[in-house]
Amino acid sequence: MKYSIILGNLGNTCDRFLSSGYKDTLDKDLLLKQAASIEGVTGIELVGTWDITMDNVAEMKAKLAEAGLRCASIIPDHFAQKRWGRGAFVSADPGIRREEVAEPRAKIDAAAALGGDLLNLWPGQDGYDYPLCTNYLEDRTLLLDNLGECAAYARDKQVRLALEFKPKEPRNHSYLARTADTLLMARELGENVGVTIDTGHAFVAYENVGESIALLKQFGNKLFHMHFNDNYTHWDDDMIVGSIHLVEYFEILYWLEKTGYDGWISMDQYPYREDGYGAIRASILFLQRLGGILDRVGMEEVGKLIAKRDPVSTAAFIREKLVAQ
Amino acid sequence: MKYSIILGNLGNTCDRFLSSGYKDTLDKDLLLKQAASIEGVTGIELVGTWDITMDNVAEMKAKLAEAGLRCASIIPDHFAQKRWGRGAFVSADPGIRREEVAEPRAKIDAAAALGGDLLNLWPGQDGYDYPLCTNYLEDRTLLLDNLGECAAYARDKQVRLALEFKPKEPRNHSYLARTADTLLMARELGENVGVTIDTGHAFVAYENVGESIALLKQFGNKLFHMHFNDNYTHWDDDMIVGSIHLVEYFEILYWLEKTGYDGWISMDQYPYREDGYGAIRASILFLQRLGGILDRVGMEEVGKLIAKRDPVSTAAFIREKLVAQ
Amino acid sequence: MKYSIILGNLGNTCDRFLSSGYKDTLDKDLLLKQAASIEGVTGIELVGTWDITMDNVAEMKAKLAEAGLRCASIIPDHFAQKRWGRGAFVSADPGIRREEVAEPRAKIDAAAALGGDLLNLWPGQDGYDYPLCTNYLEDRTLLLDNLGECAAYARDKQVRLALEFKPKEPRNHSYLARTADTLLMARELGENVGVTIDTGHAFVAYENVGESIALLKQFGNKLFHMHFNDNYTHWDDDMIVGSIHLVEYFEILYWLEKTGYDGWISMDQYPYREDGYGAIRASILFLQRLGGILDRVGMEEVGKLIAKRDPVSTAAFIREKLVAQ
Amino acid sequence: MKYSIILGNLGNTCDRFLSSGYKDTLDKDLLLKQAASIEGVTGIELVGTWDITMDNVAEMKAKLAEAGLRCASIIPDHFAQKRWGRGAFVSADPGIRREEVAEPRAKIDAAAALGGDLLNLWPGQDGYDYPLCTNYLEDRTLLLDNLGECAAYARDKQVRLALEFKPKEPRNHSYLARTADTLLMARELGENVGVTIDTGHAFVAYENVGESIALLKQFGNKLFHMHFNDNYTHWDDDMIVGSIHLVEYFEILYWLEKTGYDGWISMDQYPYREDGYGAIRASILFLQRLGGILDRVGMEEVGKLIAKRDPVSTAAFIREKLVAQ
Repeated sequence: MKYSIILGNLGNTCDRFLSSGYKDTLDKDLLLKQAASIEGVTGIELVGTWDITMDNVAEMKAKLAEAGLRCASIIPDHFAQKRWGRGAFVSADPGIRREEVAEPRAKIDAAAALGGDLLNLWPGQDGYDYPLCTNYLEDRTLLLDNLGECAAYARDKQVRLALEFKPKEPRNHSYLARTADTLLMARELGENVGVTIDTGHAFVAYENVGESIALLKQFGNKLFHMHFNDNYTHWDDDMIVGSIHLVEYFEILYWLEKTGYDGWISMDQYPYREDGYGAIRASILFLQRLGGILDRVGMEEVGKLIAKRDPVSTAAFIREKLVAQ
Repeated sequence: MKYSIILGNLGNTCDRFLSSGYKDTLDKDLLLKQAASIEGVTGIELVGTWDITMDNVAEMKAKLAEAGLRCASIIPDHFAQKRWGRGAFVSADPGIRREEVAEPRAKIDAAAALGGDLLNLWPGQDGYDYPLCTNYLEDRTLLLDNLGECAAYARDKQVRLALEFKPKEPRNHSYLARTADTLLMARELGENVGVTIDTGHAFVAYENVGESIALLKQFGNKLFHMHFNDNYTHWDDDMIVGSIHLVEYFEILYWLEKTGYDGWISMDQYPYREDGYGAIRASILFLQRLGGILDRVGMEEVGKLIAKRDPVSTAAFIREKLVAQ
Repeated sequence: MKYSIILGNLGNTCDRFLSSGYKDTLDKDLLLKQAASIEGVTGIELVGTWDITMDNVAEMKAKLAEAGLRCASIIPDHFAQKRWGRGAFVSADPGIRREEVAEPRAKIDAAAALGGDLLNLWPGQDGYDYPLCTNYLEDRTLLLDNLGECAAYARDKQVRLALEFKPKEPRNHSYLARTADTLLMARELGENVGVTIDTGHAFVAYENVGESIALLKQFGNKLFHMHFNDNYTHWDDDMIVGSIHLVEYFEILYWLEKTGYDGWISMDQYPYREDGYGAIRASILFLQRLGGILDRVGMEEVGKLIAKRDPVSTAAFIREKLVAQ
Repeated sequence: MKYSIILGNLGNTCDRFLSSGYKDTLDKDLLLKQAASIEGVTGIELVGTWDITMDNVAEMKAKLAEAGLRCASIIPDHFAQKRWGRGAFVSADPGIRREEVAEPRAKIDAAAALGGDLLNLWPGQDGYDYPLCTNYLEDRTLLLDNLGECAAYARDKQVRLALEFKPKEPRNHSYLARTADTLLMARELGENVGVTIDTGHAFVAYENVGESIALLKQFGNKLFHMHFNDNYTHWDDDMIVGSIHLVEYFEILYWLEKTGYDGWISMDQYPYREDGYGAIRASILFLQRLGGILDRVGMEEVGKLIAKRDPVSTAAFIREKLVAQ
């Protein structure tokens, strides 16, 4: 298990009512230090614009080295600037669309320079808000074409693209909304393109993440990356892992192991009011605890359990193996 | 903790696609025997028409005595007969409305005869399906008046009414939909009327049941009864307790104790495809396990934890006290 | 626009609380007569077991001819018999799985005999209820293999398969859950396999059906069939079309036209308490009204509107063209 | 019908990903001018901190007079400052709680000075995020007590308090979450305290707003204020009225008239990417159009329609009276 963190999660986070954020803004060096100090964390995800720009690649490389952290991924910024507000990859404005392809290109270069090999691409603004307001076919074609350019560029640099889906927010409807539609896209785009499952996004899509992992295996080895957070399943609440769900996370760990996933286990939360360091650390400790149970019980026993298809046996397992005695 | 079971949950259950039910229909004597054999179960809820009619009160009384079970409640049937299909308490047909008041009256008598003191009243057909199709004000007035008649009759017989809410199903919208609207009604109807929280119904209403229990305390001692089952929070899936949720159930047990609840902990599930006996038993064993943890940790420590309002501390508690080490 | 009806929708419908159904059971000959009398209806969908069996093919053929109706599709029954209760195509029982393939084969023959060329296949029981209870990878492989057998058999008979998805119910999770995952399957299965969009199922999946239609176009001409009904988007309420949504239905008609859809516009509702004939007829009249507006306004004007990507212009369009003046 | 607007809705709006907002920030004088220019708008709602402070009351009064607008309400700011981030009325910090009562007091004075008589109080930060992290009973008691102080102060100044509920956001759970729980609170607090229904918040709570209005009538004349916006019913999307719903808005207008509502019809939207002026104006034009239909059809005919409880008749009404011919 290789654990990583999205750097910004340790810092200040805002929402639409409190745009200054709920906490004080912390220094990035402190955040890096905090990240490195969490048991088991060896990687960092850097968000374009926020953490990494054209100008600070060398500096960041030195800082990561000093902190003993690897670059787990770069997340190009297609969501946090006004110019992307009405869509990046599917913008009606050809100029914007050019810039949008330039952004991941630069970040692909940055990833390569940082020794990373993964771009986590979340086209959060690429969607629509209202019915009867969009030419879906044209947009989807644009999206596929533009992602295709990124994929080709990345292939040359030996970088992989992991497409991250989310049913909604910031748009009321996203184009990359669920595992299966993103997988359709990834299969079209080639070998170096796969899917990121954000557990919270998948919960909101009413997916069972265990099945989503199996689906990505069934149609190719297409699970490239994992983001972890928890929620009530009605919105992307971005909470501490294990605050709401237990059984599903255990099942996720089983399926990651079962399908031979060897990517990062990365934390992606929004600790609006709670301490960022504490919240991220708690998520990792929770997953490590479940991982320990899985090790102890063994893959085989879990395999036998699920082969029974018997909820009463599963309830006994939960009671005897997952819950404190 | 007094555990009880809705008798029919142990038997065959159907849905709209498979009206014959997923399992074989079992003999009621066997169901009673199964119920009595589950560790800790001392009460039974009987559903009108299905389990208890005008004619079998004496017989049922003898059977309960033999099985060593008490009558936890009677649930008058206002949902399983064609005549209630367009509403019972708010039926547009005055004849139906008379019958609908007659039904709980008979069941109040039956409860008294069986030594029970609780009627669990779920007006499941009292609601509406389509917008712009209903005079809500008239319906709600009818509902209040008719429930008032039942309440008065019950008061004379020293029987209490627990009103059970549910956001929807079988109607697309129910009149008794959530804790607060049911509480409003109960306060209007007098001292012997309170509320049943079905944990699954409350989850679907996006309620935190801990808060719902506190609300019923804040505005009077209005929690009269509890039904337990689990779901994914999007529909009344009526699953084994603990299949999805952990922390919320622990929190529920805390608040039941904290507010001095002394009613029944009753199971109400729909084990469509799974073994009924096994499913109900698993739910009770899960709750007993959590109850054991609460005893060990102590009310005071949990009180201190929640006083902190700190999700990071709560995450540590979950990890250290609720999850297996 | 070719309108059709699922025959049983005109009759009695039940739910899990009222298994006898809310209405009286009507004679099938009457239902056929009612169907034929609705303006614009020229096709009928027949449900296996309920409407069509091995034994009544010739009889049904005569009745359809007499009523002047074509067989729009046959819907093999994989949901309404106890033997399918724990899954048909993915049953753990090899015997069941053999039967499950036999069922559509028989219905493919029946379709061919009736002069139809479409099987609408809804594997409603093929899914799962609980987490940590299922080997998703094995199940999904079984599903693909068994559907593959059906597809091959159908190809020989010049029959097309339309796979109908639904996020949940009767299982808490279905394998064919949304447009994209069903499309993935259909692409794997060959040219004669496509997708049925049930508007209500798609609403529950938080899909914009206009986009779903575009998606099926983008990745092949994979929209084979359409079922129409309305709901509140939280459950498959199976209501009269237009009871809740307006703009989305108009948009759907636009996209059907735009993508050259030439299949059936079929009604699939569950008029539990309302008059079946009236409910189905109302849905068709509503769609015909919207179709009339689309004709009058013209495809080009709608195309220009959506090219604007401007919700304010769309709001003006709704106000001026869709709402009564 | 008295129409009003929340001033800030015409300006720039942000979300958690794009904290600078999607548009340019406009001058408040321009916003006032835009508001006054919309057909039928005669009132303005002013948000504390954003629009109205201790220091600009006289200035604002002059501006409103100049623009010919009345102060429909003041909305004290309990959500947009860091100090309220962990709760205002239920803050664990007694100092914060004092400030929180001071804020509405100042705004009550401001309302009185501006010639207004309504405070719209939305305690958006008063809720909780995680289970097992909150003493609900203590919090709810604090909330009731502190609102009681505001109510008493307002009573002296002849100002009414309208409590606005919302199921969630910015907290994962709000204390004032739905119509009924807010009504319970309002009844406890006295005659000058009532409820604001925000149509979008109610949709998210799966309320039928027609019924919510009837409920507030049934238990007192407790509907004090109305906010209008539209959404997909899964989140507070704050869209243009009529973008998604039609029938429900018509029904709302019927029930407002039926129950003798004489308050404001106020727009409360978040036009993130669309033109603010155009979006708000479109909402009002839509409601005026529906109001025109209601006038033409007449209250009596709608009353007769809903008395039928017949979805088929309602479908005919929708088709014949609400949809364009």
